[in-house]
Amino acid sequence: MKAVQLKKYNQMPKVVEVAEPKITSPNDVIVRVGGAGVCRTDLHIIEGQWAEKSGVKLPYILGHENAGWVQEIGSAVSNVSVGDTVIVHPLITCGFCRACRAGNDMHCENQAFSGLSVDGGMANFLKTSARAVVKLEPTQAPKDIAALADAGLTAYHAVKKASSLLYPGTKTVVIGAGGLGHIGVQCLRAMTPTEIIVIDRSPEALALTREWGANYTIVADGSQVGKVRDITNGLGAEVIIDFVGEGGSLEDGVAMLRRAGSYFIVGYGGRLNVPAIDIISTEINFVGNLVGTYNDLAELMTLTAQGRVTLHTAMYPLDAALDAIHALDEGKLHGRGILIPA
Amino acid sequence: MKAVQLKKYNQMPKVVEVAEPKITSPNDVIVRVGGAGVCRTDLHIIEGQWAEKSGVKLPYILGHENAGWVQEIGSAVSNVSVGDTVIVHPLITCGFCRACRAGNDMHCENQAFSGLSVDGGMANFLKTSARAVVKLEPTQAPKDIAALADAGLTAYHAVKKASSLLYPGTKTVVIGAGGLGHIGVQCLRAMTPTEIIVIDRSPEALALTREWGANYTIVADGSQVGKVRDITNGLGAEVIIDFVGEGGSLEDGVAMLRRAGSYFIVGYGGRLNVPAIDIISTEINFVGNLVGTYNDLAELMTLTAQGRVTLHTAMYPLDAALDAIHALDEGKLHGRGILIPA
Amino acid sequence: MKAVQLKKYNQMPKVVEVAEPKITSPNDVIVRVGGAGVCRTDLHIIEGQWAEKSGVKLPYILGHENAGWVQEIGSAVSNVSVGDTVIVHPLITCGFCRACRAGNDMHCENQAFSGLSVDGGMANFLKTSARAVVKLEPTQAPKDIAALADAGLTAYHAVKKASSLLYPGTKTVVIGAGGLGHIGVQCLRAMTPTEIIVIDRSPEALALTREWGANYTIVADGSQVGKVRDITNGLGAEVIIDFVGEGGSLEDGVAMLRRAGSYFIVGYGGRLNVPAIDIISTEINFVGNLVGTYNDLAELMTLTAQGRVTLHTAMYPLDAALDAIHALDEGKLHGRGILIPA
Amino acid sequence: MKAVQLKKYNQMPKVVEVAEPKITSPNDVIVRVGGAGVCRTDLHIIEGQWAEKSGVKLPYILGHENAGWVQEIGSAVSNVSVGDTVIVHPLITCGFCRACRAGNDMHCENQAFSGLSVDGGMANFLKTSARAVVKLEPTQAPKDIAALADAGLTAYHAVKKASSLLYPGTKTVVIGAGGLGHIGVQCLRAMTPTEIIVIDRSPEALALTREWGANYTIVADGSQVGKVRDITNGLGAEVIIDFVGEGGSLEDGVAMLRRAGSYFIVGYGGRLNVPAIDIISTEINFVGNLVGTYNDLAELMTLTAQGRVTLHTAMYPLDAALDAIHALDEGKLHGRGILIPA
Repeated sequence: MKAVQLKKYNQMPKVVEVAEPKITSPNDVIVRVGGAGVCRTDLHIIEGQWAEKSGVKLPYILGHENAGWVQEIGSAVSNVSVGDTVIVHPLITCGFCRACRAGNDMHCENQAFSGLSVDGGMANFLKTSARAVVKLEPTQAPKDIAALADAGLTAYHAVKKASSLLYPGTKTVVIGAGGLGHIGVQCLRAMTPTEIIVIDRSPEALALTREWGANYTIVADGSQVGKVRDITNGLGAEVIIDFVGEGGSLEDGVAMLRRAGSYFIVGYGGRLNVPAIDIISTEINFVGNLVGTYNDLAELMTLTAQGRVTLHTAMYPLDAALDAIHALDEGKLHGRGILIPA
Repeated sequence: MKAVQLKKYNQMPKVVEVAEPKITSPNDVIVRVGGAGVCRTDLHIIEGQWAEKSGVKLPYILGHENAGWVQEIGSAVSNVSVGDTVIVHPLITCGFCRACRAGNDMHCENQAFSGLSVDGGMANFLKTSARAVVKLEPTQAPKDIAALADAGLTAYHAVKKASSLLYPGTKTVVIGAGGLGHIGVQCLRAMTPTEIIVIDRSPEALALTREWGANYTIVADGSQVGKVRDITNGLGAEVIIDFVGEGGSLEDGVAMLRRAGSYFIVGYGGRLNVPAIDIISTEINFVGNLVGTYNDLAELMTLTAQGRVTLHTAMYPLDAALDAIHALDEGKLHGRGILIPA
Repeated sequence: MKAVQLKKYNQMPKVVEVAEPKITSPNDVIVRVGGAGVCRTDLHIIEGQWAEKSGVKLPYILGHENAGWVQEIGSAVSNVSVGDTVIVHPLITCGFCRACRAGNDMHCENQAFSGLSVDGGMANFLKTSARAVVKLEPTQAPKDIAALADAGLTAYHAVKKASSLLYPGTKTVVIGAGGLGHIGVQCLRAMTPTEIIVIDRSPEALALTREWGANYTIVADGSQVGKVRDITNGLGAEVIIDFVGEGGSLEDGVAMLRRAGSYFIVGYGGRLNVPAIDIISTEINFVGNLVGTYNDLAELMTLTAQGRVTLHTAMYPLDAALDAIHALDEGKLHGRGILIPA
Repeated sequence: MKAVQLKKYNQMPKVVEVAEPKITSPNDVIVRVGGAGVCRTDLHIIEGQWAEKSGVKLPYILGHENAGWVQEIGSAVSNVSVGDTVIVHPLITCGFCRACRAGNDMHCENQAFSGLSVDGGMANFLKTSARAVVKLEPTQAPKDIAALADAGLTAYHAVKKASSLLYPGTKTVVIGAGGLGHIGVQCLRAMTPTEIIVIDRSPEALALTREWGANYTIVADGSQVGKVRDITNGLGAEVIIDFVGEGGSLEDGVAMLRRAGSYFIVGYGGRLNVPAIDIISTEINFVGNLVGTYNDLAELMTLTAQGRVTLHTAMYPLDAALDAIHALDEGKLHGRGILIPA
């Protein structure tokens, strides 16, 4: 089969011919990939940022954002059948450790992460596990929803964690109106009564969020901190969800945060660097966010089926994977890039 | 009356003669001070760390940790009577803003902070407000419990916020076994089933925590991170409560924190400086902590009355306030320093 | 002034001439009433259901749902000024007890309840307290929002308590599409992603809820339990909010509740009567609901100002109070009845 | 092998010879039983109370409270090995449904309940599933801890659910000082600072709870409601945990409950019968409780290993099972009855 393989860090991956995956354990599920999202994390992987954390051995296949159809199942699999349409949670989990038992798939003690620590789904076929597949209606097209498996899930997870703080009258700043930010705004509108302030460099990206429920949009031209403080009567916002996490967003975000507020970090690349006295004298919180749970993904699929979350995508054949990756890197990708195997 | 007055930053305060406070509004309460705690925050105030944040005008009277007896009350006060024994919550709050309505005295929009933004209680008399006084049994001696008004309250508040995370089998690291740490350990033991690991430079301070329920004590000699990782099977602790917040404690604390864990910052002086990728890849949280609510203080007084929290104090006459402040600064104070007006 | 006074239980109140209230304590606020809602609880009061619980002495003035303009203030009042437009929280609270300190106005240990335990607002003037008034924009007309002070607040409070249970994919049954149900549906839509099923005897009342976000409406003609079970794949709904609480609604509601579900009781008149084995074998919960907090009321006013909650009212001059009460009793009142003093 | 088999409702079970269970699916685990607890639910099963709810076909083997050693494992089992000491969670769960994914084993959509809906462990061997076994230290003796698998787990689960309500100064009433009550009191003491009031008919059973941390004990002689109200200044207790649920306990319990309090129903047999007006006018809650999660069981085993929970047991050979059942039925069993297969 064809696959997008990373051979060396700091070097572009290549579309190569590799062997198809095979069922080797009773809970294995092989999915025929219908759509594989291209994510900023793929760029970070290529740059080597995850080399040590993931411990993956090169070469391996990228792609942690996948949907498709069940091709083959192991002997103990009963939750899906061959032919089912599925979206693939990126984590392969054990189901036995405390974290799995508490629903926290992200913290499974025996996890593998498709496309990060093991072969991913930028390929014709992906091997995953019974616990990782969410069964969908056959009418749902994998290429249309693949991007929810990671970008969507991560945005949903952060919004859900923030939602208990967001009563009527609160304001939430969303930093970044790209793939995650777009979904984050829609989730905030569907799930909470908060007023939404979105910040991005692109007026076009901001305009889209207006349609989805953003109450205020601010072009990130250096005036953003002041504008947020104006909108919030000088007090700052109760919640910041930072989908960028680099290039000054963290410094800006802290300056926009209200006393007793909470800052949800999703994007990365930069550093959080704050004097302890500033943290304690205003009693603020910083909350890390990592992907989401399997139940989160199922909930997000419900919002999508209800039409409350829609995706903005740009489709590429799998063979053109490099075009998609370059476009993302150069900021030319409008919507989430999706690779479609032939 | 006599009072410990700060005239200039970076210069020691002085015991001087000043006018007694007077009732000027219907909710005023004047307390005859029975005990006033000396706190590391007093040193930070003298150094000017709070100058801008508090906006206080010099000279003013220090002392945010007070207990005593009601001397005089305003016309609208009905919750206490002259002669009542009281402990004084350091915040003077309005009772009308959203934060007060939600019980978050620390975030009152119209607050004053005794000894920080207005005159405090290192004096014969302190003017505070009806909403700030907690009535005690007449048998409780102000000098014995004054230190609970801030050091105790702050430690209790952080422990209470952490407690929902602390199921049987979890481990909590307490950094710092001084005044706050001592109370923190006792609160953890009274309120949660967590196993407690205490770290401090002083073996004597650590020995006391053993009596109060610490399961492990570690001398901070450079080996502390490794020892915590050993005790936690290499995983780190679910919760860190950092009562130090400077001199390397934050760097150490982050290195001791478990995946999905929470770091409660109480002490200050240093900086929190962590790459965003480390925060998101392990989904960790940082939680600011500031004093505590009035209800927190009442709950802590209950634990004290039940004998579950005891204080280790060193008494000084008010006239010897400078001796107490110097002793604290030089690390020679064993237990919390309490000033007793004549 | 004119007032709707109850002289004897089980006898209709009368519009009579009484003395105007006077400021007697420093926190008193006198409100010139712009609108006073008529509520099913007024019928229950007349029937004597609250006689023992409220302990009120007859005769007294009805009306617990009021908005208007500040007419006069006591010497310690600083949160409102004469002339301000205000909505009146029905509870007069102390601000000092633990419940007030935790924001739970409903459980103030020193409370009075306007129109239930002390004189209410079906009159030209109402005496309340500084802590009970929520300041509004001068553009808001008291007669248009008075019904939010109790009916609206109670519905909002129940929805807010339920909201943490209501993730995407859940279903919520709202029993009763009268004054409270109408607001409940709007609050559910504004604050949660749950699917809403509304049950009522009146097809007209149900039709209105469709416009406000109800996903399913069911006429209560005996088929309602079966229909809810059909909609929920035989499992029942995760949450029931019962605004009726009599006439079979409780029996129906329990039969519609899903395993591990929660039943919010708001309406009353009937009995909850369930075998303990049914409660434990499915691990279900029953949650009482009483009015709401002051912060709840402020949040609801925000939703109203944002246009997310609208009221359906029928206006009556204060002189025609009995007409409104009769219309409510006979089920002929469309929308919430509001009395307007001349 | 020998097994305690129920052949007909309302007729005592018998110790009979039956075939040993066999591995039939890849996740099966066969446990050699070291101890099987005898529970009041077994009496209720014999009386037919569970006939319809469980849907079990007679004859079948009783016993839902088991510990022992792994005898044989299916091909997909990797979390335990042959010879491991284990305690058996009574629920056999799928690991794929939403409830399992959220940690709520009790609500698994594809569950079986050992000894209730399928064969239990009053036998030499028990067939269960990989997800149901908690691995213990080899030093722990199955007969000493078997009773924690259901009685202990149920008490722990209820206490854990209540614990967030139990700040210093609250009072908790424990109704029933039998097997569950004993563990409930110890869990309350280990996990919360609440003051504990225990009610039982037996002064001996009450005396034991004193040693474990009960602050007040009351003999249930008709004076219990008055005594609880005296202890609580006439206000009632914030939390009631009712391990009896029949014979007047529910009526008593409701009368002891404080405004805004929560009533945790664990025992059953009686009915909850309360006017809706009483539920809403005090805003009280009723909370069903059913067994507990797998993580709950693991946490309870931690408390036991730490020596904070100890069991009071009466051992019987499996052959004498009927003696144990009769003793329980006649109130002659002191401590939890444990059957030990030869």
